[in-house]
Amino acid sequence: MSNVLETVAEVAAAEDERRAANAIRALAMDAVEKAKSGHPGMPMGMADVAAVLFRQFVKFDASAPDWADRDRFVLSAGHGSMLLYALIYLLGYPGVSIDDLKNFRQLDSKTPGHPEFGHTIGVETTTGPLGQGLATAVGLAIAERLQAARFGDEIVDHRTYVIAGDGCLMEGVSHEAIDLAGHLKLGRLIVLWDDNGISIDGPTTLSTSTDQLARFAASGWHVQRVDGHAPAEIAAALAAAQQDARPSLIACRSVIGYGAPGKQGKETVHGAPLGASEIELARAELGWPYEPFEIPAETLEAWRAAGRRGESERLAWEQRLAASGKRDAFENFLKGDVSGAVAAPLRALRESFATERPKVATRKSSETVLGVINAATDATIGGSADLTHSNFTITKGLGSVSAENFAGRYIHYGVREHGMAAAMNGIALHGGFVPYGGTFLVFSDYARGAIRLSALMGQRVVYVLTHDSIGLGEDGPTHQPIEHLASLRALPNLYVFRPADAIETAESWEIALNAKTTPSVLSLSRQNLATLERPLGENLTARGAYVLREPSGGRHVTLIATGSEVQIALAAADLLWTRGVRAAVVSMPCWELFETQSPTYRASVLGSAPRVAVEAAARLGWDRWIGERGAFVGMTGFGASAPADALYARFGITAEGVAGTAQALL
Amino acid sequence: MSNVLETVAEVAAAEDERRAANAIRALAMDAVEKAKSGHPGMPMGMADVAAVLFRQFVKFDASAPDWADRDRFVLSAGHGSMLLYALIYLLGYPGVSIDDLKNFRQLDSKTPGHPEFGHTIGVETTTGPLGQGLATAVGLAIAERLQAARFGDEIVDHRTYVIAGDGCLMEGVSHEAIDLAGHLKLGRLIVLWDDNGISIDGPTTLSTSTDQLARFAASGWHVQRVDGHAPAEIAAALAAAQQDARPSLIACRSVIGYGAPGKQGKETVHGAPLGASEIELARAELGWPYEPFEIPAETLEAWRAAGRRGESERLAWEQRLAASGKRDAFENFLKGDVSGAVAAPLRALRESFATERPKVATRKSSETVLGVINAATDATIGGSADLTHSNFTITKGLGSVSAENFAGRYIHYGVREHGMAAAMNGIALHGGFVPYGGTFLVFSDYARGAIRLSALMGQRVVYVLTHDSIGLGEDGPTHQPIEHLASLRALPNLYVFRPADAIETAESWEIALNAKTTPSVLSLSRQNLATLERPLGENLTARGAYVLREPSGGRHVTLIATGSEVQIALAAADLLWTRGVRAAVVSMPCWELFETQSPTYRASVLGSAPRVAVEAAARLGWDRWIGERGAFVGMTGFGASAPADALYARFGITAEGVAGTAQALL
Repeated sequence: MSNVLETVAEVAAAEDERRAANAIRALAMDAVEKAKSGHPGMPMGMADVAAVLFRQFVKFDASAPDWADRDRFVLSAGHGSMLLYALIYLLGYPGVSIDDLKNFRQLDSKTPGHPEFGHTIGVETTTGPLGQGLATAVGLAIAERLQAARFGDEIVDHRTYVIAGDGCLMEGVSHEAIDLAGHLKLGRLIVLWDDNGISIDGPTTLSTSTDQLARFAASGWHVQRVDGHAPAEIAAALAAAQQDARPSLIACRSVIGYGAPGKQGKETVHGAPLGASEIELARAELGWPYEPFEIPAETLEAWRAAGRRGESERLAWEQRLAASGKRDAFENFLKGDVSGAVAAPLRALRESFATERPKVATRKSSETVLGVINAATDATIGGSADLTHSNFTITKGLGSVSAENFAGRYIHYGVREHGMAAAMNGIALHGGFVPYGGTFLVFSDYARGAIRLSALMGQRVVYVLTHDSIGLGEDGPTHQPIEHLASLRALPNLYVFRPADAIETAESWEIALNAKTTPSVLSLSRQNLATLERPLGENLTARGAYVLREPSGGRHVTLIATGSEVQIALAAADLLWTRGVRAAVVSMPCWELFETQSPTYRASVLGSAPRVAVEAAARLGWDRWIGERGAFVGMTGFGASAPADALYARFGITAEGVAGTAQALL
Repeated sequence: MSNVLETVAEVAAAEDERRAANAIRALAMDAVEKAKSGHPGMPMGMADVAAVLFRQFVKFDASAPDWADRDRFVLSAGHGSMLLYALIYLLGYPGVSIDDLKNFRQLDSKTPGHPEFGHTIGVETTTGPLGQGLATAVGLAIAERLQAARFGDEIVDHRTYVIAGDGCLMEGVSHEAIDLAGHLKLGRLIVLWDDNGISIDGPTTLSTSTDQLARFAASGWHVQRVDGHAPAEIAAALAAAQQDARPSLIACRSVIGYGAPGKQGKETVHGAPLGASEIELARAELGWPYEPFEIPAETLEAWRAAGRRGESERLAWEQRLAASGKRDAFENFLKGDVSGAVAAPLRALRESFATERPKVATRKSSETVLGVINAATDATIGGSADLTHSNFTITKGLGSVSAENFAGRYIHYGVREHGMAAAMNGIALHGGFVPYGGTFLVFSDYARGAIRLSALMGQRVVYVLTHDSIGLGEDGPTHQPIEHLASLRALPNLYVFRPADAIETAESWEIALNAKTTPSVLSLSRQNLATLERPLGENLTARGAYVLREPSGGRHVTLIATGSEVQIALAAADLLWTRGVRAAVVSMPCWELFETQSPTYRASVLGSAPRVAVEAAARLGWDRWIGERGAFVGMTGFGASAPADALYARFGITAEGVAGTAQALL
C-alpha cells in the first residue's frame, strides 16, 4: 500500500516537475516569438535542469535578492537569457512582471537580449560574450571563500552555480578559469554544462572532439554526467556535487529546443524564433494548452513557493549574523567604502613624496602606494598574471591565497590575464572587496573581453598595467604597447591613468579606489621618473590634466604629455627657453577626467598657443587635444628591441625632438 | 669486444650530445650577460632537448632556409630567444654570425629580445606573447595538410615542432589551439613542453594544478613524458611522436637554468643575467672552459654538419618536385598572388552591383564578393568562429576542412576567436594561402593578441567582422561594438575597412587580397544598406575617403561618415538642402589609406567648411578629421538591447540628429 502511495506521489511529483520546466519552455518560446528574435533553444533544452536546480538546490529568497549569503547563479550561456528571465518571473522576484517578459529585447525593458547586471534584479553578472560567465563565477566563488575566511562559515557559506554552453567551454578563457578553480579547490562552484552537441554552425563535432569530463578532471574537478531531462538524475548529481570538496562539472546531455518537435536537436532552434506553427506543435508536444505568456495558477504558485523556499534559512542567517557580534563589521565591509581609511595615509604619502622626491619608476611608486593602501584597508585583494615582481603588485604581509589559505590577500593568477580580469569582476561583484591585478600593458589585449565587462557593469576593478611603452626596452615590439592607450581610452566608463611621477601615481590610486562604479587602468612605467615640482594641496590628477609649468611672459607653445614623457616635455621646455621660445607644460594623466572639467578650466589648461602632444604611443585620439594647428611626437609604428634610451632616440621622442617639432610649428 | 666498442661509441656520442647542448647554454648565458638583460633559464634548461631535436629530427637545410618542405620550428616560449639564436648560429644559417649574438637585444641587431618573423633568418613566426606560438603552429600544421591535399604528400610532407613553456599552457589560447589540433588530428604537430615547474612568480604550484598530459589526452593528443636532460629518452619520444597519427605532446621535465649551480631550478634564473660569478661556476659545472662566445671548433663543426644534414633530402625533394609536373603550379601557389585572378571578376561584380543596386547588409554583400573571389582563386581558406551563417563567410562548394578532408577550403574554427586568428597567422605564414575568418566585431576583443601579431608580422590575414555597431540591435550592449573601430585603427599596419555598400565591400576585399604585407579588418553591417550613387571606374575605397556628394554652389558643411552611417549622412544632407544648407557627403571607408593620400587630395575631400562626422561608435580618433570646429555624432557610452532603428533614434544617430548638429555648428 505504501509503495502504491509512494508511486502515486512520485508520479505527481514528476508531473509537477515537468510542468514547472514546461513553464520555462513556454515563456521562452513565447517571448522570443513576440520579440521576433532571441534564443529559444537553450532555455527549452535546459529547463528541466533549471527547474531542479532552483526548486531544490539554490539557496535564495526571491523577496530578498540582495541577501549577502545567497547562492550565486550565473547564466554563462547568456544568449539563453529567457531561461533566467523566466526563472526570475516565476520565482517571484520583486518588480518583474509578465509584461516585462512580453517586452523581451525591447528598448528600456527589464529583459534585454543578454542578462545585464544592474539592469534586471536577480542577474548576478552580465553575460553573453561566451566564457565570461564561467570565468566570472570563479571570481564569485573565490570571493565567497575570502569572505568566509574573514567572517566565518556561519555567516558566509554559499555556492556559485553556473549554466555553461558548448561555446563557453570552447573559449580559451574557460581553460584559465577551470585551471584556477581546480587549483584553488573551489568546492562550492558547480557548473552545469548544457551538453546539447549543437553550436551555431551545426553539430559540435564540426569543431571539437575534446572529452570535457576528462579535461575538467585533469584540472582537479569532480565530474559527472546526467540525462538533462531526467530530474532525479539531475538532483542526485547536484547533491553529490554539493558534497564533493572539488569544484564540480555536471555534463547535462540535453536536446536543444526540447519540446519543439520539428526543430529540437538542430542548430536552427538555437537563435531564432520557432515560428507560429512550430510553437503550436510544441504546445501539443509539451501538453501545454495555454495562451502565450499564460502560466496556470497552480504551476505559478508552485514556482512562487520555490521562490519563498529560502526565507526561513535567510531569517536564521540574519539571526546568526546579529548574534555573531560581527554584523556591523560585515555590513561595513559590504559597503566597500575605503576612501575614509586611505585618505589620510595617502595624503601623508604624497607629502613624503614631495619632500623626498624619489626618482623611481611609476610601477615602483605604485608598490609604495599599495603598501600604504593595503595597510590602511583589508578590502584590497591583489594579484598578478605571473608578473608580481615586475608589476610590483605585492606588498608586505598580504599572504598568498591558496586552497589552504583564503585569509591571504594576494592571488597568483598564473599566466592568465583574461581569467584574472574575469575573476576580478567576480570578486568585485560579490561585494566589499577591491580587486586589483597586474600584467604588462601590452597584455591587456588578452584580457579585453573581461575589461570591457568591468566597464559595462561599472565594477571597481583596478588594472595595474606596467611596462607601458617602448620604455620597457629590450623585450622588443611584442612587449611594447603602441595602440593600447588609445584602445583603452576608447572604452566607455574606464579611467585610464598614466601618471608622470610618484605623486600622480598616488593620486591615481586614490581616485581608482573611490570610483565605485568605474574600473581603472594604471599605466605605469618600467623606467625611473623624477618627482615633478608642483603644488600639493589638491589631487591634481582628478582634474585629468593641469599646467605643470607656465612660462612667464605668456606661452608661445603648449607641450602636453603623459606619464614618462612628461619629463621629456619639461626638458624640451628648458631647451626651448634657451632658444627664446616660451613653452608651457601640461601633464595629462587622465583624459576621461579632463573631459569632465568645465570648458573654462579646459581652455585655461590647453591655452590658445599651438600645442604639441608627447606620448610614446599611437597618435589616435590626440587630435582632440592638439587641434588642427597642433603636432604629435610619438610612435607611428611598432617598437623595436633595444635599451630604452636608444629607442627613445630612434623614434625621436626626445627633448630635442619635441623642441624641434614645436619650433617647426611656430 | 663489440659491446665494449659500442659502449665506447655511446660514451663518445653522449659526450658529443652534451657538448652540443652546452654550446647552446654557454651562448645563452654569455649573450644575456652581455646584453645585461634577457632570459637564460629556458635556453639552458631546454638545450638538451633542442640539441636532440635539431641534430636528429628536424628536417631542414640551413643553407636553404626557405625550402618549402622544411619542418617548421616554433619557439612558443619566445623569451627563450637565445635558444633559437644559438641554434641558428650553430647550425650555420647564412648571415648570422657570432657578432650578431654579441649584439643580442641591441638596436638593429638580428637578435632582438623575442624572435621576430622577417627579422632573423630561420624564425618562422614572431613569439613572445605566451601561447601565440603554439596557436600559430596549429595554423602552420593545418596549412601543411591543406597544401599536401592539393599537391600530394610527395611534395608536401613536413612537421611542425614547438617548444612551449608553462605560461603557454596556462594561457587560454592554448586550449583553443589544442582542442582544434586534436579535432583535426594534426599528427605532424609535435609539442615539446618545457616542464620546468617554474614561472616568474615562483613554482608553478603557486597557480596551477592541471595534469597537462591528461588535459592534452582529453583533446585527442598522444602524450609522453621524458627527462629533458636524457638525450636517449628525448630521441625515443620524438621517434614515437613521429609515428603517432595524433598530435603529440612530450612533457620534458627540465631544470630551468640547468648548469648554473647556484641558480638552477629557481625563478631567479628565468629572466635576468646570471652574473659574472655564477657564470664562472656554470662554466666549471658544465666543463666548458672557453671564453665568452667561444665555441670550440669540433663542437661548432658538429653543429654545422647537423645544419647540412638535410641537404640531400632537400635535393631529392627538388628532383621529385621537378619530376612531378607540378613545379610551376606549386611555385605559383607559393607566390600567393591572387590579384590577377580576381581583378576581372571583381570588376564585373562591381559593375553588376552598380546596375542592380542591391539593398543588402554589407555582410551579405561580402558573401556575394566572396563567392566571386572563391571561384576565381583556390588560395583562399575561409572560416568562422562558429558564426558562419551570421558572418556569411561560406560560399558554394568550399567544402569543410576536417581530419578526413584537407581538400576542403572552409574551417569551422569553433567558438575560438583567438585560436582562429592565431591559426590564420600560421596559415598565412606557411605561404600561398589567404586565410579569412569571421566573428562579430565586438569579439575581436578575444582575438586581439593574434590580430596584433598579424599586423606586426605583416601577414595577409582578413578578418571578417560583422554586426559592427548598435545596428545589430536586440542582442544588446555585450554584442554591440563601441570602441572597437578606434582600437583597431590605433593598431599599426592594419587596414580597417568599413564599407558603406556592396561596391565599397567589393573594393575593400580587393585591396585586402592585394595587401601582401598588411592584414585587413572588414567591419560589416548586420542591417541592409542601399547601393550608393557614385562613379565606378576607380577603386575609390583605395583612396580611403572620397566625396560622395558635392552640393552645387559650394559647401556650407561637410558630413563625413563610414559604413552604415553613410546613408544617414546622405539623408541628413537632403534634409539640410531643404533648409537651405549645402552639405557635402564624404564616405571614409579606410582611414589608413586616406592618410597615405596627398595633402592636396585630402584637403579636397575634407574641404574648408565645418565638418560633422557620423559613426555609430566612439568618437576617439575622429577629431583628426573634423578639427576643432567640427562635431561628432556617434556613441558616448555603451549601447542597449532593442531593435536597431529604436537604438539609432535613442542615441540620436539619425538624419535629423546629424542635420541639427550641422546647423548648430554653422
